[in-house]
Amino acid sequence: MTKIDTDAFLRDLYELREIGRFKTGVHRPTYSPQDMESRRWLMDRLAACGLEASIDGIGNVYGRHKGPGPHLLVGSHIETQNEAGWLDGALGVMAGVALARAGLPVDVCAFADEEGHFEGGFLGSRSIAGELTEAEIDRSRNRTDGTPLRDALAAAGLAGKKRMTLEPGRHKGFYEMHIEQGTQLEGQGLRLGVVTGIVAIWQWRIEITGMQDHAGGTTMAERRDAGLAAVRLLAAIDAEFPRISGERSTWTTGRIALDPGAPSIIPGKADVLFQFRDVSVPVLERMETGLRWLVRESNRRERCTARLEAISKAIPAVCDPAMMKALEAAAEAHAPGLWQPMPSGAGHDAQVIARKMPASMLFVPSIGGISHHWAEDTKDEDLALGVTVLGAAAERFLAA
Amino acid sequence: MTKIDTDAFLRDLYELREIGRFKTGVHRPTYSPQDMESRRWLMDRLAACGLEASIDGIGNVYGRHKGPGPHLLVGSHIETQNEAGWLDGALGVMAGVALARAGLPVDVCAFADEEGHFEGGFLGSRSIAGELTEAEIDRSRNRTDGTPLRDALAAAGLAGKKRMTLEPGRHKGFYEMHIEQGTQLEGQGLRLGVVTGIVAIWQWRIEITGMQDHAGGTTMAERRDAGLAAVRLLAAIDAEFPRISGERSTWTTGRIALDPGAPSIIPGKADVLFQFRDVSVPVLERMETGLRWLVRESNRRERCTARLEAISKAIPAVCDPAMMKALEAAAEAHAPGLWQPMPSGAGHDAQVIARKMPASMLFVPSIGGISHHWAEDTKDEDLALGVTVLGAAAERFLAA
Repeated sequence: MTKIDTDAFLRDLYELREIGRFKTGVHRPTYSPQDMESRRWLMDRLAACGLEASIDGIGNVYGRHKGPGPHLLVGSHIETQNEAGWLDGALGVMAGVALARAGLPVDVCAFADEEGHFEGGFLGSRSIAGELTEAEIDRSRNRTDGTPLRDALAAAGLAGKKRMTLEPGRHKGFYEMHIEQGTQLEGQGLRLGVVTGIVAIWQWRIEITGMQDHAGGTTMAERRDAGLAAVRLLAAIDAEFPRISGERSTWTTGRIALDPGAPSIIPGKADVLFQFRDVSVPVLERMETGLRWLVRESNRRERCTARLEAISKAIPAVCDPAMMKALEAAAEAHAPGLWQPMPSGAGHDAQVIARKMPASMLFVPSIGGISHHWAEDTKDEDLALGVTVLGAAAERFLAA
Repeated sequence: MTKIDTDAFLRDLYELREIGRFKTGVHRPTYSPQDMESRRWLMDRLAACGLEASIDGIGNVYGRHKGPGPHLLVGSHIETQNEAGWLDGALGVMAGVALARAGLPVDVCAFADEEGHFEGGFLGSRSIAGELTEAEIDRSRNRTDGTPLRDALAAAGLAGKKRMTLEPGRHKGFYEMHIEQGTQLEGQGLRLGVVTGIVAIWQWRIEITGMQDHAGGTTMAERRDAGLAAVRLLAAIDAEFPRISGERSTWTTGRIALDPGAPSIIPGKADVLFQFRDVSVPVLERMETGLRWLVRESNRRERCTARLEAISKAIPAVCDPAMMKALEAAAEAHAPGLWQPMPSGAGHDAQVIARKMPASMLFVPSIGGISHHWAEDTKDEDLALGVTVLGAAAERFLAA
């Protein structure tokens, strides 16, 4: 059985942590100088492991195993959110490097802009999956400062470079190791999570129209307060969703905006952003059915009109059973009773790659559940256990 | 009995409407060139009626009756909201001019910035009541563009002018005629409203603190969603307030803001602006008691903390019974059965002047309840009836 050099793996992570360091975390926005430096550093690491290293026109860094297959693809992303953590993404990339260093037949990839600094989302993984058009790249701009993606690519020296695509049939599957970014593992004293699937987000906008009017001069009986109708609809959703949701579903109202939003004016409009997530399509459909009748019921009772709009309805990415089985066996062998199957509530490159090949993810605990923050952290021994289990699972799966 | 020249009164109103005309309404923000033109025009009208006309350091225009008392004070405001109506304020000022023209012993006043273009509110009436300090004028800025009040006064040619105060004991009472700005009169086929009092606004801020977190990675059981706690508290207020409010109370949530307000982030903070209004202090206190225990109950049940802050608690201005009696008698004489007593849901200069002398208001219908909009309007015959009744009431009250 191949032994993973966990010391070298941790050394890699700590070395990468120095590029764009911010307090105990990292600031490496996509295509920034620090991000490009980390990509060049990664290519050196890949070459040192005997892989053929390259960077493509969207910034994907790829290390191609030179020997025969069957191959696995292992990776994640290497840029970070602003002033954020040192492990989110980097962990999965360096785990790939660790597996390659150990001689396993893996290609390693760092998919550009999983963190979505630029409009579009998952640009790198979608590009390598053949889903990103030139037109979309032309349109995309930085979400923070509006820089066109084309300009950022040019400034990073990537203009005119070809974009790579996955070689059909080359990989038996894709493994991504990642921090949990939640508190489930830590809270239950567990050390590993075998991901069952990546939830789909069904994102909605609810627009409520009433009648703007004077808060003093308009009686309670005659007013058509869109903010109040929104409150009552959201309270009804809060009461009803536990009945219809799945065991691990989440539903969230991220934004409520009243118009005009002044203290003495009855709101004539309310704008709500509401989403729910689950890994099962029947459950998602059940929640949609519930949401729709709650809106219908609101329109039956209220003097304001609610309009429901689906902004996006992603498809859950189900992890491959055989890959999961290999992870579970490896987890049980190395940390008996200290792992659980669980969905990923957050999006990952794996959900894109899953459209092209079997995919699976392995979680390690997040201390305090913190992520997208420079205080993000995981104990060294959990990082080491994770990459060990990943290596063992990769071997099992390749042999199966 | 003194006869009010309603033709001249309407002519005055239509002439004033031309200054700063905007569609069928008027755009005369405080201290703007159009506003200052209207104040000069008003001083001419006051002088033409035999009054001693002046303008003071805050922009109050005053017409002082030259003969013996007892005197009444009659007035309102002459500036408008942006692109708003032709009658809001102007009506009460020209009604004063009409009474003076008819020979009644009235002083007429147009109090500056009742509409609150500058921070502070009711600057003119508070100034003449001796309640506006130089320090407050120093601090005040335009709410729309931040222009310091001092700069606006200087640009209007008012810098260095003394500010007038009411002569103690000179006036038996203050009458303000105003459009209703609601639909009560029109809706019930009535032509006049004898105002019982001006509601006080008790304005609150409710700040709810939870824990910002990932909408996908955080389970429903562990999240501390400040937006949801806000929704549930507001729904509870909506359910409870009808039990404890007064017959004509209003309560309104004008603003809800979730932080950070992003679709995939559980709000860690919610900020709510909530107010209630009534003309009775015991009722206001009952609603405060209710609000406080609803917040306490929220803090008992929720995992988020709600903090209640009183931003302002005005005192209702009760109208003088003798002045009201005179209005009622005049209304019944001129429009039998077509009037009602009613509170004013909106603030007026009368609430400030009421702190210095007996005060009372007379409402005329607003077509469609529209105000603070250029489509604001009232039928000529209702305007004429109103000023006739005001004149008759003034006579009765002076004689009583």
